[in-house]
Amino acid sequence: MEAKKANIFSPNSPRQNVNPDLDIERKNISFSTEHLTNILDGGSSNTKLRREVEAVLEADPAFSPENRYFQSQNERYETAIRKSVYLSQKMAKMGWIADSPEQYYCFKFLAEDLAFNLHIVFIKSILALGTDEQINKWIPLANKNFIIGTYAQTELGHGSNLRGLESTATFDVATQEFILNTPSVSSMKWWPGDLGRTATHAVFFAQLYLKGHCYGMHPFIVQIRSLRDHSPGQGITLGDIGPKMGFENIDNGFLILKNVRVPRENMLAKFSQVLPDGQYKKQGSDKINYLTMIVVRVNMLQGTVIPCLMKACTIAIRYSVVRRQSELKPGEPEAKVLDYQTQQQKLFPQLATAYAFHFVCNYLLGIFKRCYIQTNEGKFDLLPELHALAAGIKVITTNYCSEGVEVCRKACGGHGYSLLSGLPSLYMKVIPSCTYEGENTVLLLQTARFLIKCYGMAQMSQPLPSSVAYFSSVNFGRCQAQEKKDFLNPDIYTDAYKHRAFRGVRNVANKLRQLVEEGKGQHEAWNQCTVQLAKAAMAHSHYIVVQKFTEELGKHAKGSAIQRVLKNLCDLFALHGIFSNAGDFMQDAYFSTEQIDRVTETYLDLLAVIRRDAVPLVDAFDFSDACLNSALGSYDGHAYQRLYEWAKKSPTNQQDDRVFKTYLKPLFQNALSKL
Amino acid sequence: MEAKKANIFSPNSPRQNVNPDLDIERKNISFSTEHLTNILDGGSSNTKLRREVEAVLEADPAFSPENRYFQSQNERYETAIRKSVYLSQKMAKMGWIADSPEQYYCFKFLAEDLAFNLHIVFIKSILALGTDEQINKWIPLANKNFIIGTYAQTELGHGSNLRGLESTATFDVATQEFILNTPSVSSMKWWPGDLGRTATHAVFFAQLYLKGHCYGMHPFIVQIRSLRDHSPGQGITLGDIGPKMGFENIDNGFLILKNVRVPRENMLAKFSQVLPDGQYKKQGSDKINYLTMIVVRVNMLQGTVIPCLMKACTIAIRYSVVRRQSELKPGEPEAKVLDYQTQQQKLFPQLATAYAFHFVCNYLLGIFKRCYIQTNEGKFDLLPELHALAAGIKVITTNYCSEGVEVCRKACGGHGYSLLSGLPSLYMKVIPSCTYEGENTVLLLQTARFLIKCYGMAQMSQPLPSSVAYFSSVNFGRCQAQEKKDFLNPDIYTDAYKHRAFRGVRNVANKLRQLVEEGKGQHEAWNQCTVQLAKAAMAHSHYIVVQKFTEELGKHAKGSAIQRVLKNLCDLFALHGIFSNAGDFMQDAYFSTEQIDRVTETYLDLLAVIRRDAVPLVDAFDFSDACLNSALGSYDGHAYQRLYEWAKKSPTNQQDDRVFKTYLKPLFQNALSKL
Repeated sequence: MEAKKANIFSPNSPRQNVNPDLDIERKNISFSTEHLTNILDGGSSNTKLRREVEAVLEADPAFSPENRYFQSQNERYETAIRKSVYLSQKMAKMGWIADSPEQYYCFKFLAEDLAFNLHIVFIKSILALGTDEQINKWIPLANKNFIIGTYAQTELGHGSNLRGLESTATFDVATQEFILNTPSVSSMKWWPGDLGRTATHAVFFAQLYLKGHCYGMHPFIVQIRSLRDHSPGQGITLGDIGPKMGFENIDNGFLILKNVRVPRENMLAKFSQVLPDGQYKKQGSDKINYLTMIVVRVNMLQGTVIPCLMKACTIAIRYSVVRRQSELKPGEPEAKVLDYQTQQQKLFPQLATAYAFHFVCNYLLGIFKRCYIQTNEGKFDLLPELHALAAGIKVITTNYCSEGVEVCRKACGGHGYSLLSGLPSLYMKVIPSCTYEGENTVLLLQTARFLIKCYGMAQMSQPLPSSVAYFSSVNFGRCQAQEKKDFLNPDIYTDAYKHRAFRGVRNVANKLRQLVEEGKGQHEAWNQCTVQLAKAAMAHSHYIVVQKFTEELGKHAKGSAIQRVLKNLCDLFALHGIFSNAGDFMQDAYFSTEQIDRVTETYLDLLAVIRRDAVPLVDAFDFSDACLNSALGSYDGHAYQRLYEWAKKSPTNQQDDRVFKTYLKPLFQNALSKL
Repeated sequence: MEAKKANIFSPNSPRQNVNPDLDIERKNISFSTEHLTNILDGGSSNTKLRREVEAVLEADPAFSPENRYFQSQNERYETAIRKSVYLSQKMAKMGWIADSPEQYYCFKFLAEDLAFNLHIVFIKSILALGTDEQINKWIPLANKNFIIGTYAQTELGHGSNLRGLESTATFDVATQEFILNTPSVSSMKWWPGDLGRTATHAVFFAQLYLKGHCYGMHPFIVQIRSLRDHSPGQGITLGDIGPKMGFENIDNGFLILKNVRVPRENMLAKFSQVLPDGQYKKQGSDKINYLTMIVVRVNMLQGTVIPCLMKACTIAIRYSVVRRQSELKPGEPEAKVLDYQTQQQKLFPQLATAYAFHFVCNYLLGIFKRCYIQTNEGKFDLLPELHALAAGIKVITTNYCSEGVEVCRKACGGHGYSLLSGLPSLYMKVIPSCTYEGENTVLLLQTARFLIKCYGMAQMSQPLPSSVAYFSSVNFGRCQAQEKKDFLNPDIYTDAYKHRAFRGVRNVANKLRQLVEEGKGQHEAWNQCTVQLAKAAMAHSHYIVVQKFTEELGKHAKGSAIQRVLKNLCDLFALHGIFSNAGDFMQDAYFSTEQIDRVTETYLDLLAVIRRDAVPLVDAFDFSDACLNSALGSYDGHAYQRLYEWAKKSPTNQQDDRVFKTYLKPLFQNALSKL
């Protein structure tokens, strides 16, 4: 902990001089926060390494978060480029190599202030899709940032439906070149990061045309800007797409190509190539690339999405014990807002959610590793299940984390609207995850398609993938729990989630079949079921998250303090889900009115239990003040003082008196004689 | 409609050259959009007047929305001051007076670009709280902007609990002055608009101290900046609170007073005054001020909150018929995304919500008028009910509208993240309404307190206020509806909402009583019930909205096209609420599993029915392109072209090559010899 440095705006070390209202929350803690931090890091050696990396970054003034909340989009961009270039030098100096844990911790710590994100995707796609020759040519240059690449796939008019992309690559046998075009306004590339003002090269996706026949989407390397003066090449129009919600450090761009020629060798040719005579040749299987896409999704959840919720919880919970409002009992001093049941009901489910999703990601990474080994052996059986699981978990995680961040933000009242609280930028950072790396509705329906298929297999008593094995074992009786304590039994609530998910899948499968029997076409019937399909896929994913959280409990010493506190969170996550979706659980009278009332009481009682552990539970996330960058949520709890100190530095307090002289003074002088 | 002008970025009139995909949606419309516009405006003469005002503003280049999305906070502020000063001149020239409908339409149209919002509150509070003498002194100056005022109530450490405010005003008999102080960091005034960089005066709220005794909160006029050079007076520290989520045009500020003296006459003294000898004297009743607070809330809903959702619906629905994605049937062209059930399920409930809340506000304004007359006659019986209603409706409206705007934004995929879509700024504008003018949780619990009291009265068979009269008439049987069409009967679903609300109130009232019987103190028992109290208050408010929407249907010719289309929206609003909160409606087996399944089917069928009217239903909101200021949602539907044209103007495309020369060129030159 010694490495922790004070935020640049706060001259004191945050571990001293703590606000007494926060300090008292850290006395007589019922479990070891250090132990919990180690669990979250995946072992104490990881915690140690992470802290070492963070200490190096925090000690280097070049990485200071500076006045991030005060910067314009242009300033954020310049800062990001400067820090990204400097980080490469720093990593080389420290001996931290690419794809190392050190790099992962650097990116996670500095993400808001870095560029070159799509450059990394550019590198990874050449490694995945290029021949050895192509890799040897491009990767050494890209690794050293001698060229900066981007990944130009999404178009102005097309995102999720890749087959609909309009860009074209036509082979010219005479010159042995591909002619690249974005033939319409809607086909210009739109959104790729690093494209707007930085990249020199792009992996450009286009429909391949050979002798008038279309062979579908293929990747081409194209140089888009001069290395000498950064000007766009002949036939190339490009630029930045302008202001966005969040991601101001990144230069998302547009790209128009008009008859731009690249040599035949620039088509990435690991899985298919065009021969000199214009013949098309496919080779090998590109299925392993699906795995890449899946692991990118899971890493995004653990590296970006869940930490946003963890940070929001840290800020909101710490602030809620230093903010006081009204009396809980007449005559007493004003109460900490965290002592109000309504505040607990806002924040604690978010805390439990952050833990729940952290553990389910560990589970996904476990399957991913098994799947990776199998795929390399040429076996692809696990792929559809892994894809369906990862898609569903991506959706529920990004949805819940985004909503959760916003709940935390709003729970901080007016101050949650100040950028200086750190909360608005967390929302801006987390919410796009519902759209990028697979739009959530599109992904949910992919998970649903897998579930419907498996339901059909279950009906025919075929063996089922393990994550849906419950399709053949759901007990269609009613929940047997009676007393409040029964609802704290993981078997009871896991069964309830199982029942809910299965019922959702079964009903929509039946509806689908019935619509087809009534004469509807497959596609029309599917469209008429998509709302319920999406809902069933969410229920299934929710069940998986609950189940994996209960499995996590088994990994810790029975009756230990850590197990107890994790079980409280697991119970809360599960019961909050029932409380919030009671209708689903009451279907077929699985839960009676009385049982739902008891779930509610058990859930509300749990809030009071978690109250005493709330601050240690967010301390265990172990975010330094520099990483949180929040006037409300710093370790020392001096929220008001810091808000005031930071506000004074705002550029809005440094404007000259032009506005006064031009617009106001001529008015005010009319009052001079009268006051 | 002739008055409509093209957005400054689009040279063509938007009524010509419409994207065919949007144009076809406006053929063979099943009802008169003009008629519906008139209903929303409250009569055709209002529509006419509104359009005349908007035409004047749109024709004046000084009011152009310019490059709003490209401006920094400093630029937004300067624009707001410039336009606000100019608007006063323009209104004088046009003969539009204060508090006229013309002024209302101006503010609604230009709100994003105006300042002086709290100046208006300053004026209104002097009118409400000042003596005739005080009004005669200050109002003429304030009305002409010769002084600019702010309303300094909220403190850094206190918002919702007004009694907890720490600022003090101590009377000094010797000098006949009040000594004003903000005695701690947490007591500095924080958030007031126009305070940060503009206001010369403030209505400052402080605890009044006379001879050591505290008399509670009172308002004082204090000059805070020089009229000559704008410098803060002796003992005054002030400034801007810095960057926020939204409201960049407004200079929210902070204010520290240290022994600042104001003359005795500066205490606003309509309801209480301090005599020269330091005696305190109360006079009259200030209950009418509650009414002011209530009407401010309702006006805020109709003037700001609901229009945000209406605009978001307009943008998202128009965009969803020009965006195409994947095939609905194999071999067909890509389908409009609005033809997907999942997209309809996102957008149409928002559309119905916008209409529902518009009508419930009309109802509230109706009671307000009755209440205003009664209050002036010294009768205050309606006040508690009106307060409870307005608080609950404020909460449900701001919650639903904020969430709805975000649903619309996300339904536009990646482009919904571009500021140029207009959608992010709508969210930034609407979401703070959940916190200002009464924090939502605090307000809900005020409504709940009224409901609990009325429940007690119902138990004792006392007469009940009309909005809770159903407490004595709820039928505790089960819902009798059988077939799908039964659920389109307003009596059926209104009864269901009534039952849900009553059950929520009854259960929590019983729990409260039980806790007290078990020996818990009143306050502790209340706190342990607050989650359920808030939920019950939401259910009651939801019932009121549904009920008032059904009453609206009766105002239109039976069987008319307008009645049909409004009934579809009313049904959708009601059934969506049951679908989304099924658990509440299944309590006590009011709805069976089979009935809920039928509600779901009826609800999904309705989506397809509303599909054909979707574009006319948003056209009826009658927002001009300049008012929407959206690249995605303009009347002509040329979304992609406009997004591209606007992006090119972004300052991110006008930065010099400093970043390239400083950071990138030194790297890139290493690749020159290799490529």
